[in-house]
Amino acid sequence: MGVIEVDVARFLQDLHALRAIGAAGVGKGVVRPAYSKADIAARDWLAVRMRDAGLAPVFDDMGSLFGLASGRSVLLGSHTDTQPEGGWLDGALGVIAALEVARASREAGGPPVSVVSFQDEEGRFGVTTGSAVWSGVLSAMQAAQLQDKDGVILDAARAAMGARLGARVYPARFSAFVEMHIEQGPVLDQAGEKIGVVEAIVGIRDMTISFTGQQNHAGTTPMALRRDAFQALSAFNSVINDRFRNIVTPDTVWTIGFVELHPGAHSIVPGRVRFSMQWRDGDAERLARMEAVIRETAEEIASEMGMALELGDMLGIEPVAMDAELRNVLAVAAEGEVPGKWRHMPSGALHDASNVAGLMPAAMLFVPSIGGISHAFDEDTDEADLVTGLQVLARAVSALG
Amino acid sequence: MGVIEVDVARFLQDLHALRAIGAAGVGKGVVRPAYSKADIAARDWLAVRMRDAGLAPVFDDMGSLFGLASGRSVLLGSHTDTQPEGGWLDGALGVIAALEVARASREAGGPPVSVVSFQDEEGRFGVTTGSAVWSGVLSAMQAAQLQDKDGVILDAARAAMGARLGARVYPARFSAFVEMHIEQGPVLDQAGEKIGVVEAIVGIRDMTISFTGQQNHAGTTPMALRRDAFQALSAFNSVINDRFRNIVTPDTVWTIGFVELHPGAHSIVPGRVRFSMQWRDGDAERLARMEAVIRETAEEIASEMGMALELGDMLGIEPVAMDAELRNVLAVAAEGEVPGKWRHMPSGALHDASNVAGLMPAAMLFVPSIGGISHAFDEDTDEADLVTGLQVLARAVSALG
Repeated sequence: MGVIEVDVARFLQDLHALRAIGAAGVGKGVVRPAYSKADIAARDWLAVRMRDAGLAPVFDDMGSLFGLASGRSVLLGSHTDTQPEGGWLDGALGVIAALEVARASREAGGPPVSVVSFQDEEGRFGVTTGSAVWSGVLSAMQAAQLQDKDGVILDAARAAMGARLGARVYPARFSAFVEMHIEQGPVLDQAGEKIGVVEAIVGIRDMTISFTGQQNHAGTTPMALRRDAFQALSAFNSVINDRFRNIVTPDTVWTIGFVELHPGAHSIVPGRVRFSMQWRDGDAERLARMEAVIRETAEEIASEMGMALELGDMLGIEPVAMDAELRNVLAVAAEGEVPGKWRHMPSGALHDASNVAGLMPAAMLFVPSIGGISHAFDEDTDEADLVTGLQVLARAVSALG
Repeated sequence: MGVIEVDVARFLQDLHALRAIGAAGVGKGVVRPAYSKADIAARDWLAVRMRDAGLAPVFDDMGSLFGLASGRSVLLGSHTDTQPEGGWLDGALGVIAALEVARASREAGGPPVSVVSFQDEEGRFGVTTGSAVWSGVLSAMQAAQLQDKDGVILDAARAAMGARLGARVYPARFSAFVEMHIEQGPVLDQAGEKIGVVEAIVGIRDMTISFTGQQNHAGTTPMALRRDAFQALSAFNSVINDRFRNIVTPDTVWTIGFVELHPGAHSIVPGRVRFSMQWRDGDAERLARMEAVIRETAEEIASEMGMALELGDMLGIEPVAMDAELRNVLAVAAEGEVPGKWRHMPSGALHDASNVAGLMPAAMLFVPSIGGISHAFDEDTDEADLVTGLQVLARAVSALG
């Protein structure tokens, strides 16, 4: 068969209909956290749309909604829950594009396509909670006891979904997973490109570091006798920036985003600093080399500047490479749709595809985010770019069939 | 006459008796904030001691306690209020040493010596509040409306001193002021020296600076596209440290003691930082040159790194030089008592002497602080060093007579 013919108007209409459920804040803002009334209403609306498209809607124990095609199928989707202050496209785009491709493929007699909206991707309770449980990364028992920032237990929150819950959806019924998503970064927008084919979802390392020197009077303590924790932090930052140049690629990122000085007064030489050091890359070996530099530099600075050093536990999320064949199918589809106006790129953010990649071949497709803005009411993408993404997805699914 | 013979045992006994009023915390800790029960009890105890020493005790409107000798006299003293968590010597040493020298001088037929304990030197309400009002630096009306951190008005707090208040003490009755104090810094202790003759009480400049860049996702924003406010702060700090080398002396100090990153999350490139920049020196011209470097560097960094810059109002306290003749008298006394084991030095902390220097020749004498610790329960000085300070003060007063 040729390329599945999608219905652009129907796709955009559904995207705007979903946006209206939980619409809030300014512009196209949406507030639909996992298990909230708006989240459940959106899932109920989506279940009706799935049924209309000839898919069988079922909710698993976590509240992830699957629209199942008969027999073995390609799984497309993302999530419909949002950040506490979210945009209209983060997650929703991938779900509605999946719905349209499933519908259009069925109408055209193309390959069977199932659709999923995973629950709690945005992490009210955990990190990509619904897909983590579905893929066995997180046990159902552990998930049930997770708490949100107000102390609500997941098990209590999901009770609002009542009798909907309980279906068992075997991963083995799917041949592949493709998640389309906004980039949430500025790369495509700045380059004027339309599509990103994700090579890998980057791994994350995150460590809290403390330097403890000597708290002193800022008037009576000569510079030469100080052990100033802020000066240690600043020196650490400069040296790290310098040493990383020999290790990193343009895709590697690192961030000191949290700094707590003690006691934090104008007239007191700070005796202690706690700060976060987070670094991300698609290559686990590079992450390890960066870790070695961080540990070594922190120890050098501590020793040179008379600081006690405390290196906290390291959070580690491993990089997840996308399936090579599936990536190639997406690349061919992108080149067919927007020749020369797409790129291979890493995903700096986590996605449900990270979890699903353990179950089946998985891949991701990015469309531009205007100004790179995400997790905010003013997240947006030109509708023409959303349509381009839909068409690349439809091409890829046609090729899979 | 020769040197006034002080009574060392009586001096130490009084110092320990005063310490018992408001004793708290660990070790030799004392809690006697301005106008607290313990503060007023200490002043009442001191008034009795003054009367026993042949001095007329009077409280001015602020609650500063003067023990007046007849006729024109030398004024010695400091303060008996403490920090919320204070030590036993900060202020108290200068008052009890003054009492002992006044007493001993009277017994020996030496020069008349009056004694003062200023109120609220530690700034529950302002900065050196009692001496600031006495010297006209702060108007009585403004002082009355000052609030402490809990919102208590000074006028309400001093009501606890009741009928004690109200005496008028003319500065013109005093010929000079000498304040003995612990150093509150590590210089004498580290050098193994016994006495510091203060050249000047340093001036202070204090400015809050903000850099505003762009808040972004720490995973999806490439390093080259970031405008990271923490990186701007770290760069500013490095450049400032470098440029100051050509301007400062070993006595100059500067401190970044307060840092607030926004939003302060591990996974978010910080979009904004507010931080304090404080610098101190005995020379107003040097303070101004440092200010120029700070402004210029902040503007350069902002421009290079794409930051909006906000320079807050600058707090300025002018340096106060100690009286040259009086300093010389103290230097001669120090050399007589501990030859070669004393130095000229600035005071990095503010003192009541800063205010009194506007009324009459004023000078200060430092004794060592063990480990440079002050404004803490574990502030301390070897008793032998306290006695040395007392004897230098007695020698100086003898010379003035």
